[in-house]
Amino acid sequence: MKLGLVGLGKMGGNMRQRIRDAGIDVVGYDRNAEISDSDSLADMVAQLGEGPRVVWLMLPVQFVKQTLDELKDLLGEGDIVVDGGNSKWINDKNNAAYLSDAGIGYLDVGVSGGVWGRQNGYALMVGGSDPDVATVMPVFEALKPEGDYGFVHAGGVGAGHFAKMVHNGIEYGMMQSLAEGWELLMAADEVTDVPAVFASWQEGSVVKSWLLDLCVLAMKDDPKLDKIRGFAEDSGEGRWTVEAGVDLAVPTPAITAALYARFSSRQEDPPAMKLVSAMRNQFGGHAVVE
Amino acid sequence: MKLGLVGLGKMGGNMRQRIRDAGIDVVGYDRNAEISDSDSLADMVAQLGEGPRVVWLMLPVQFVKQTLDELKDLLGEGDIVVDGGNSKWINDKNNAAYLSDAGIGYLDVGVSGGVWGRQNGYALMVGGSDPDVATVMPVFEALKPEGDYGFVHAGGVGAGHFAKMVHNGIEYGMMQSLAEGWELLMAADEVTDVPAVFASWQEGSVVKSWLLDLCVLAMKDDPKLDKIRGFAEDSGEGRWTVEAGVDLAVPTPAITAALYARFSSRQEDPPAMKLVSAMRNQFGGHAVVE
Amino acid sequence: MKLGLVGLGKMGGNMRQRIRDAGIDVVGYDRNAEISDSDSLADMVAQLGEGPRVVWLMLPVQFVKQTLDELKDLLGEGDIVVDGGNSKWINDKNNAAYLSDAGIGYLDVGVSGGVWGRQNGYALMVGGSDPDVATVMPVFEALKPEGDYGFVHAGGVGAGHFAKMVHNGIEYGMMQSLAEGWELLMAADEVTDVPAVFASWQEGSVVKSWLLDLCVLAMKDDPKLDKIRGFAEDSGEGRWTVEAGVDLAVPTPAITAALYARFSSRQEDPPAMKLVSAMRNQFGGHAVVE
Amino acid sequence: MKLGLVGLGKMGGNMRQRIRDAGIDVVGYDRNAEISDSDSLADMVAQLGEGPRVVWLMLPVQFVKQTLDELKDLLGEGDIVVDGGNSKWINDKNNAAYLSDAGIGYLDVGVSGGVWGRQNGYALMVGGSDPDVATVMPVFEALKPEGDYGFVHAGGVGAGHFAKMVHNGIEYGMMQSLAEGWELLMAADEVTDVPAVFASWQEGSVVKSWLLDLCVLAMKDDPKLDKIRGFAEDSGEGRWTVEAGVDLAVPTPAITAALYARFSSRQEDPPAMKLVSAMRNQFGGHAVVE
Repeated sequence: MKLGLVGLGKMGGNMRQRIRDAGIDVVGYDRNAEISDSDSLADMVAQLGEGPRVVWLMLPVQFVKQTLDELKDLLGEGDIVVDGGNSKWINDKNNAAYLSDAGIGYLDVGVSGGVWGRQNGYALMVGGSDPDVATVMPVFEALKPEGDYGFVHAGGVGAGHFAKMVHNGIEYGMMQSLAEGWELLMAADEVTDVPAVFASWQEGSVVKSWLLDLCVLAMKDDPKLDKIRGFAEDSGEGRWTVEAGVDLAVPTPAITAALYARFSSRQEDPPAMKLVSAMRNQFGGHAVVE
Repeated sequence: MKLGLVGLGKMGGNMRQRIRDAGIDVVGYDRNAEISDSDSLADMVAQLGEGPRVVWLMLPVQFVKQTLDELKDLLGEGDIVVDGGNSKWINDKNNAAYLSDAGIGYLDVGVSGGVWGRQNGYALMVGGSDPDVATVMPVFEALKPEGDYGFVHAGGVGAGHFAKMVHNGIEYGMMQSLAEGWELLMAADEVTDVPAVFASWQEGSVVKSWLLDLCVLAMKDDPKLDKIRGFAEDSGEGRWTVEAGVDLAVPTPAITAALYARFSSRQEDPPAMKLVSAMRNQFGGHAVVE
Repeated sequence: MKLGLVGLGKMGGNMRQRIRDAGIDVVGYDRNAEISDSDSLADMVAQLGEGPRVVWLMLPVQFVKQTLDELKDLLGEGDIVVDGGNSKWINDKNNAAYLSDAGIGYLDVGVSGGVWGRQNGYALMVGGSDPDVATVMPVFEALKPEGDYGFVHAGGVGAGHFAKMVHNGIEYGMMQSLAEGWELLMAADEVTDVPAVFASWQEGSVVKSWLLDLCVLAMKDDPKLDKIRGFAEDSGEGRWTVEAGVDLAVPTPAITAALYARFSSRQEDPPAMKLVSAMRNQFGGHAVVE
Repeated sequence: MKLGLVGLGKMGGNMRQRIRDAGIDVVGYDRNAEISDSDSLADMVAQLGEGPRVVWLMLPVQFVKQTLDELKDLLGEGDIVVDGGNSKWINDKNNAAYLSDAGIGYLDVGVSGGVWGRQNGYALMVGGSDPDVATVMPVFEALKPEGDYGFVHAGGVGAGHFAKMVHNGIEYGMMQSLAEGWELLMAADEVTDVPAVFASWQEGSVVKSWLLDLCVLAMKDDPKLDKIRGFAEDSGEGRWTVEAGVDLAVPTPAITAALYARFSSRQEDPPAMKLVSAMRNQFGGHAVVE
């Protein structure tokens, strides 16, 4: 089996290596010629030889559509495209229908694991048809962690990215919970060795988790996190989780709180508080910080 | 009737004037001799003449206890102390018991209205016994707005401050709601004249309210609130409302959100977001703002 | 001037009367022949005579698109369609572009005021071009409350519904704040006459508002609201406000809390709490309610 | 070394066994004679022999104070009392001062691990002086999990329970995050095998955690959790975490959301939504569910 892999950045590059380590040929394509195995998408497809050909996209969301356009011309009946990026699940059904006009199959795969995935394996959440999943299974086997877990065929097209979106939503909430607890420990005078408290929880406690392990790692170099600004971006999936909840009337207050805390962290001068301050000034003559 | 009034700051000073305008004698006492009508608490009490004497405290919370200590010696059977400050309701029962040893009555009064109260009247929420309320009624009549509203005998000792605390909790939530809406209008490109939108809501809309009127006033001078920092203090009653909700298992998510938004506005470098950022860096190699 | 008014339900019917009271001819159309002034949309348009003709839609969201389709054939150059329903602002630009092919103008109008509007006037938030607004101005004058307020030309197409959406978002947050305060007063033993406390706030207090007045009215008939179930629907605009905030990275925690409280009120057996309960059972042997 | 252990319920009973398995003598006392090793507290203390004697309390919060009263008479100079229950950290300094009059030392220990602790070990968070910790260290070694983690001397008296409180607050937020994600997966049509998705996350994913493992276990018997009601109690520490945050002006929105979701789950007819519904009825004639 040969796999075409489009996008060889931090994630894609590591995945190429892990798949090759499992004995599968990978022809990578990246706009950056230095890391690419091919000169163009067309060249990459040509190198894949006889079908069924499988092309895995590991691209930023904004490049997916145009790449699908090109691949629709390059691939054909029985071939399969896998979108392994952080695409919005709601686009998957459209993408699948678009490719299916040309007889091309489509799988959407949520990939978790970050920079640790090359070594430990990537958790994979897959959406699509049984036959398409069966075809790509050797690649999934190469990527996933050893053991019983780390792979799920979650449902039809869209289910993979939906499951990944929810996974990331949960991740937002867990990170926020750890962070609130840490802030509280730091603010109070009671606990004198906060990193030691976090480290102690790594065995025997209810909050034992990989995210906790990462907190402990981060505090090893920088016990009070003095070198890191209190500023967090968000990557889309937190927003989509909240939107999906709103759409389905499912309350997600903790995940939403986590998202809003990131929004707030990026506001130097929170606009809403300007109006609150203005009202306080109007009714109470409260001192306003100008 | 003569009233002793302790604390002649922004609130107390205006209240003295409004009570005098209603024809009631007021002997004020303040540490600031320039605005005081008496040299000391003892002098003030002496000027009140024969009982039943009524002494109204309009003091910052931290000065209430010591003033009650002094008044317990100066007053006696049948006299009444009124705590009109923003005291925590939970102290009222103790204060009442403490004074009742000396036969002194006690009323707790929540006073709303801010700097507009002198002209428009103050909303009063009163806790205490029927006879004590009846004794002080002329003062309440002087302070409250004209008409049917603006005064309530809410229950026994503690009920006045409890009602005022809840009033302020609601106020937090309403202010936050207006502020969130304003921030959204300002952030989107759709609405080109935000102050005009707020002004239009002053008649015929569901959000018609005094707080909305204050928003409109504030935007008259400073349409985008450029002169005001996004920074809001909190004065205690928001915190007590959340605590009372937690204690009684009553969820108060909107009021709590309002309180937390004020907390966040005072954090230049939100600690929790440091740890979120640190975790993101650990698992994803996400760029961290240092 | 003659106005075509489509949709004569609770809102539309009252508005027809208020516009007529101001001396403007209204030809109404409704699927319900008993209240309709015309047999069909075509008949209604025919009765409007020479242009410029103005047709105001007061329809449930799901009927707007098909009605625009029909009106595009019936109207022409210089005519104007007004969407006064609770439509999503994001559709307005499309609707305007669609009609503009036929030379038909488009205004989006957010209308607030509920069943009280016929008597007190409706707050109007309008989006669209200056000339179109000028043409429809007599109708706006008829509908709005007397005085300086209750009308705003908020911006271009979409601004009216956007402003109305934000208005309703604020309304959600205000209602939730009042409701949380009420629940807390009812849950605690301190305050013995909760309706009297709410009534007292109607003058001189910071929370003075039309929504507070409505609370007082509701408690007059039913002091403990025993006759009303704790169950609240949501009508779309709360959800859109949260979505717009998420899209623009504007945190709206109080408004979101209000929306989620309504979602939760409709869950008899909250699913998330099943899993929380299951986890508690797994780690702690906590008693689980089965 | 001999340890006195008061309270032999689910937690205490398992701990007695684990400590004995490590070769330490334990004299247990419980009101339930069938499981007790002694007839009374006095008998238990007598069986401990010569000092320094260590007595570990594993009691519901409400029984701690009276037990300390009794132990103050039974113990003396150089002995140590350990409060291993879920006591509020704020009481620890008082308890320590109370016992120190009699020369008795005091340690507060937060114990995590639930019913799995006997086998896997208990995470221990300890507050108190270095010499007292050193004395009790053999017992801590017996209880903690094997390896580097699971024990921390977090600070002076109070630090153990404070750390445990924060641990549980984080636990609330993590559980809520998992539960929100699960509810969303169940509500949407995309994912057809929700238990498989959760199971897949157990390796290679960012949300890998012990709580996730418990979710998977719970779904093994009951894939849709049909047998469990959506109803969750709270045990105090979530409330204290929110209170501590409010007191220190540390926003804890995700943990608070988790607590409030539990509160809401216990309200059959949410009071706040009665007033929201009543207001909607007043202004809009919205249908009210009666």
